[in-house]
Amino acid sequence: MPQNIAILGASGYTGVELVRIIATHPSFEIKALTGDRKAGQPMSAVYPHLRHLNLPDLITIDDLDYAGLDLVFCALPHATSQAVIPSIPETVKVVDLSADFRLRDPEAYAKWYGKAHDAVEMQEAAVYGLTEFYREEIKGARFVAGTGCNAATGQYALIPLVKAGVIDPDDIILDLKAATSGAGRSAKEHLLMSELNENVKVYSAGGTHRHLGEFDQELSKAAGREVRVQLTPHLLPAARGIVMTCYLKGDPEAVHKTLADAYLNEVFIEVLPFGEVPQMKDVRASNFCHIGVVGDRVSGRTTVVATLDNLTKGSSGQAVQNANLMLGVEETAGLMLAPVYP
Amino acid sequence: MPQNIAILGASGYTGVELVRIIATHPSFEIKALTGDRKAGQPMSAVYPHLRHLNLPDLITIDDLDYAGLDLVFCALPHATSQAVIPSIPETVKVVDLSADFRLRDPEAYAKWYGKAHDAVEMQEAAVYGLTEFYREEIKGARFVAGTGCNAATGQYALIPLVKAGVIDPDDIILDLKAATSGAGRSAKEHLLMSELNENVKVYSAGGTHRHLGEFDQELSKAAGREVRVQLTPHLLPAARGIVMTCYLKGDPEAVHKTLADAYLNEVFIEVLPFGEVPQMKDVRASNFCHIGVVGDRVSGRTTVVATLDNLTKGSSGQAVQNANLMLGVEETAGLMLAPVYP
Amino acid sequence: MPQNIAILGASGYTGVELVRIIATHPSFEIKALTGDRKAGQPMSAVYPHLRHLNLPDLITIDDLDYAGLDLVFCALPHATSQAVIPSIPETVKVVDLSADFRLRDPEAYAKWYGKAHDAVEMQEAAVYGLTEFYREEIKGARFVAGTGCNAATGQYALIPLVKAGVIDPDDIILDLKAATSGAGRSAKEHLLMSELNENVKVYSAGGTHRHLGEFDQELSKAAGREVRVQLTPHLLPAARGIVMTCYLKGDPEAVHKTLADAYLNEVFIEVLPFGEVPQMKDVRASNFCHIGVVGDRVSGRTTVVATLDNLTKGSSGQAVQNANLMLGVEETAGLMLAPVYP
Amino acid sequence: MPQNIAILGASGYTGVELVRIIATHPSFEIKALTGDRKAGQPMSAVYPHLRHLNLPDLITIDDLDYAGLDLVFCALPHATSQAVIPSIPETVKVVDLSADFRLRDPEAYAKWYGKAHDAVEMQEAAVYGLTEFYREEIKGARFVAGTGCNAATGQYALIPLVKAGVIDPDDIILDLKAATSGAGRSAKEHLLMSELNENVKVYSAGGTHRHLGEFDQELSKAAGREVRVQLTPHLLPAARGIVMTCYLKGDPEAVHKTLADAYLNEVFIEVLPFGEVPQMKDVRASNFCHIGVVGDRVSGRTTVVATLDNLTKGSSGQAVQNANLMLGVEETAGLMLAPVYP
Repeated sequence: MPQNIAILGASGYTGVELVRIIATHPSFEIKALTGDRKAGQPMSAVYPHLRHLNLPDLITIDDLDYAGLDLVFCALPHATSQAVIPSIPETVKVVDLSADFRLRDPEAYAKWYGKAHDAVEMQEAAVYGLTEFYREEIKGARFVAGTGCNAATGQYALIPLVKAGVIDPDDIILDLKAATSGAGRSAKEHLLMSELNENVKVYSAGGTHRHLGEFDQELSKAAGREVRVQLTPHLLPAARGIVMTCYLKGDPEAVHKTLADAYLNEVFIEVLPFGEVPQMKDVRASNFCHIGVVGDRVSGRTTVVATLDNLTKGSSGQAVQNANLMLGVEETAGLMLAPVYP
Repeated sequence: MPQNIAILGASGYTGVELVRIIATHPSFEIKALTGDRKAGQPMSAVYPHLRHLNLPDLITIDDLDYAGLDLVFCALPHATSQAVIPSIPETVKVVDLSADFRLRDPEAYAKWYGKAHDAVEMQEAAVYGLTEFYREEIKGARFVAGTGCNAATGQYALIPLVKAGVIDPDDIILDLKAATSGAGRSAKEHLLMSELNENVKVYSAGGTHRHLGEFDQELSKAAGREVRVQLTPHLLPAARGIVMTCYLKGDPEAVHKTLADAYLNEVFIEVLPFGEVPQMKDVRASNFCHIGVVGDRVSGRTTVVATLDNLTKGSSGQAVQNANLMLGVEETAGLMLAPVYP
Repeated sequence: MPQNIAILGASGYTGVELVRIIATHPSFEIKALTGDRKAGQPMSAVYPHLRHLNLPDLITIDDLDYAGLDLVFCALPHATSQAVIPSIPETVKVVDLSADFRLRDPEAYAKWYGKAHDAVEMQEAAVYGLTEFYREEIKGARFVAGTGCNAATGQYALIPLVKAGVIDPDDIILDLKAATSGAGRSAKEHLLMSELNENVKVYSAGGTHRHLGEFDQELSKAAGREVRVQLTPHLLPAARGIVMTCYLKGDPEAVHKTLADAYLNEVFIEVLPFGEVPQMKDVRASNFCHIGVVGDRVSGRTTVVATLDNLTKGSSGQAVQNANLMLGVEETAGLMLAPVYP
Repeated sequence: MPQNIAILGASGYTGVELVRIIATHPSFEIKALTGDRKAGQPMSAVYPHLRHLNLPDLITIDDLDYAGLDLVFCALPHATSQAVIPSIPETVKVVDLSADFRLRDPEAYAKWYGKAHDAVEMQEAAVYGLTEFYREEIKGARFVAGTGCNAATGQYALIPLVKAGVIDPDDIILDLKAATSGAGRSAKEHLLMSELNENVKVYSAGGTHRHLGEFDQELSKAAGREVRVQLTPHLLPAARGIVMTCYLKGDPEAVHKTLADAYLNEVFIEVLPFGEVPQMKDVRASNFCHIGVVGDRVSGRTTVVATLDNLTKGSSGQAVQNANLMLGVEETAGLMLAPVYP
């Protein structure tokens, strides 16, 4: 029996990535798609690449009938989710892909997002959607908050290391390279082809990137003490993908063994042989995350490189993985699509 | 019961695209992968993006055991296929992805490829792999020769029009924009990122592109008379995709109706509403071909734009589609992967 | 003695390209830069790549003092120029880079730009800025209207041919490939890196591109009869550059000889040896236009490929070339910058 | 009176970048160009973007007549320079752009380049070409060895800091993003558009990049003690440019002040206002280097970002700057070309 699904905010990049994945999912059925500004249009008018699919037309959220729905993916813009999700009937499960419910602490939310949260109770109750570390909670959850795509990439590299105490938690440096689709489809000058081709552009430097809220929350929890990483994000001349280069103090082989052991039974997290480093395109359009570990000529230093596709494992693939767990479906259902290379 | 498959020449781009597609194919099982120069290596050493798959190691063709195989995909370089394919046991079906068996006429082959064919009898017997036009022959075939990726794109736009006589067959102009993966993985100066980024480069101009042999053969057959198109190929700063802009003499609405009717029941060929034009990324990493038709302010002129992914519908997706027919499997099996956008 | 220059609309791409060229111009001195939305800021705040230059801060047009100025470059948005230029003192020469004064005929303007012209008298008086064909008029002009970048590319290929009668003027097909900077710096969805990378996108198909107004005007004038070309523009995954592939009916060698003769003494127009075709990057960031001619296996058909940099020879370089003539300076002053390759 | 110049190895990327710069240099005159594999061809056959220049044809090195030459740029491949340069007459000055003479210590050379040096005496005598730090030696030198492009970028960020003792020399982490032209024009698989578009690829990780020899030599000299940095290079989907992100322990404002003071009178090194960070395209095709400094929420941590164009300030622009000094010409002659943006 299929699970009945709706996607709120289907006209953004995470929305169409959900559609792409669900298109070959064995048991999810898309019953409704909302997109307030595009309501009334067929999806193929907004995204012609989906025209082979028999999809419902876009409607407004107000016109959405929740009856019969098993689960809603909420791919609305940040700050909109917190206005919409509280009104979803309790019988419908929810996976949120926005930033609204990633932080448990209302003060942390206010600090990173510059406003008080409008749905504090739900904020506190949401389960953080980093599947491999919250699998059991997610299985029983009604409401899961997807992670930031950059935050996910860094956490896959760091959480087992911080937990195991094999690196110095006070000297973690993250150099982030991110493609543009993580910034969404809204038109902004610095995201133009004219601006970015043949360019690399630092943004949110010096500890101001919002995903640091997630790093603080999750790494501190994993370490049992406060952890504050450094993060410098760089925008790439590319549409999809994230590479996180992590500069760590710790023994390289211990780091590698810790990661390899942590992910030994994880389908989607691949730890490469010691000394090998992944490239961004190796996980393109897939739900995989590749992690490599190298030592350095400077002893006691380790570099960990993690890569995933921001729209798949970093958001919509993760969301489907969590939805699978929440609905009692095989965790990997619909997600074994191989990376697209070259 | 699964079909047992081998891929000869698995270390090229069409080879790994076959692996990508078969990875989620419901009934194909990869039993062997050959790659003479990389023999002895696991596929994940040559293509780490495939490391999540449990694939056989690369072997030499000489070490391949054909026993138990249902079908072999031959993704070898041009001119190598004709040396290898004749020695494949008759009980094993073959889909060739090289240029070796696309032309029926030994003289045409010699003209376009600059050498006599080494397996003339098989050349004459091969079925041309443009599925939508050779479906019945392919169903019963033991040996199918895949088309050129550029030739496929143009033929999808032109064959119904030439057949129906709605365009002037003596004034067909094709402006081709092609990404680099169509040229394969071998290192050539003009394919370097340094050379091609922010560039567009004409190649094989003036009627010298080898795929013209296929156009001549198939369009003349469709028209029942000799047809000779003009073709100017342009190399793009991109890795995947083909756009063919066809300048035709004929009534735009008649052209659109002819194409829409021709492909009405075809799953993979989407004719857009009259006046809409597809973009290259709308079919990325999928088996779909999008075709758009526009009129012009100059009356009696029609522009048809066709796009497909050179590695999928243009070669490996087409190959799987043909293999499905040859093996009695559902034609679309493994091929309903939605395009990757953005 | 230096010529005193002001740039209106200095914060757009053609504005900063003017600054780049004038930075090493032997006799132009930038006295004022306007940018209404950025007024009060130093140029280096808007464009840090210019920070080594000692430039005046951005001011509003209203604050501009025309006293002492020899020439003003007007790089304002389309429709704004016609409101501003009439109020510039007669003693100051003007080179306009917008689309406002390219068409001589008010009805043609209204047709292509969807509104009546606000300065019809100046529209009729402006000299069309395609230097190589209007050199004498430009020398004596007070007001020159720069051409469209795509229109310039096509006209360099076509005007000598139409004049000489060596091609059929009723069967001219132009396939345009254009980088994104021609669309300016304003943020639009279809110009995003996310949308355009690995993409090619047709726009303004079917005879609706505004530069057709210029083609109609200039080619008809050159032919002494009405000429209506076909034009299909394609947006490229690149920031700078234009390639125009022209499909013509005419003898290839006659076409080549006509072009080679026409541009024999032109510094900036390079006609390649017969059979060679230029690539887009060969003229990058320079004032050169390269033109190649090839024949075809279909006899009587000729393909001409022309390429230039939309921001240099297509707009700001052309503007400086015209300003040089208007001010009695060496025509090539400041413009012999070699193309940037790779 | 012009200086007579020859370029050995003119057919590589640094060779044509030298030609581009010298094309508008006020006093250098190119008398000879060598390119052994392309000898006999005009430069415009190998690089059509230079066809407007009246350049000598390519010849072999053996055919080069040194009589009358003032200076030779040696842009030969690594390991070839050391075979050629010893035979250049003493009366001719030499600027080498290869890696052969960057290291003073024969053992260091052998370690990083895997072979004994063939011209040890010249190796020891060469002046290191980082102009801003060796200006006086360069003025009097007959033989200057250009720096590595990545090494130059990092040294501009680090040398004043190490000298001033405002950062911890034992904890310097360099995250390098480099475009492909730094790897030259020879065809290699990993440099293909197909491989690199939409990709980021780590190479020479863990302290194995050859430019570390230069860092070791120069930073240790500046510090008066051994300094060993960490360096992780990432290959970008771009043709030109380098961004070096330096993670340092030190007070951000002290770091900024030290850099701003150090480069106060340097024309080509721009230190941005505190808290601002440069982007790669801001120095494109120019001889400028932009450096930005930001603090971090983690106190005592500073991030310095330096960017330059690998082919200009990183090699050929630097070479011309040094040649200017060696020949008694204005240091900035030919080098004030503004960056190309966008």
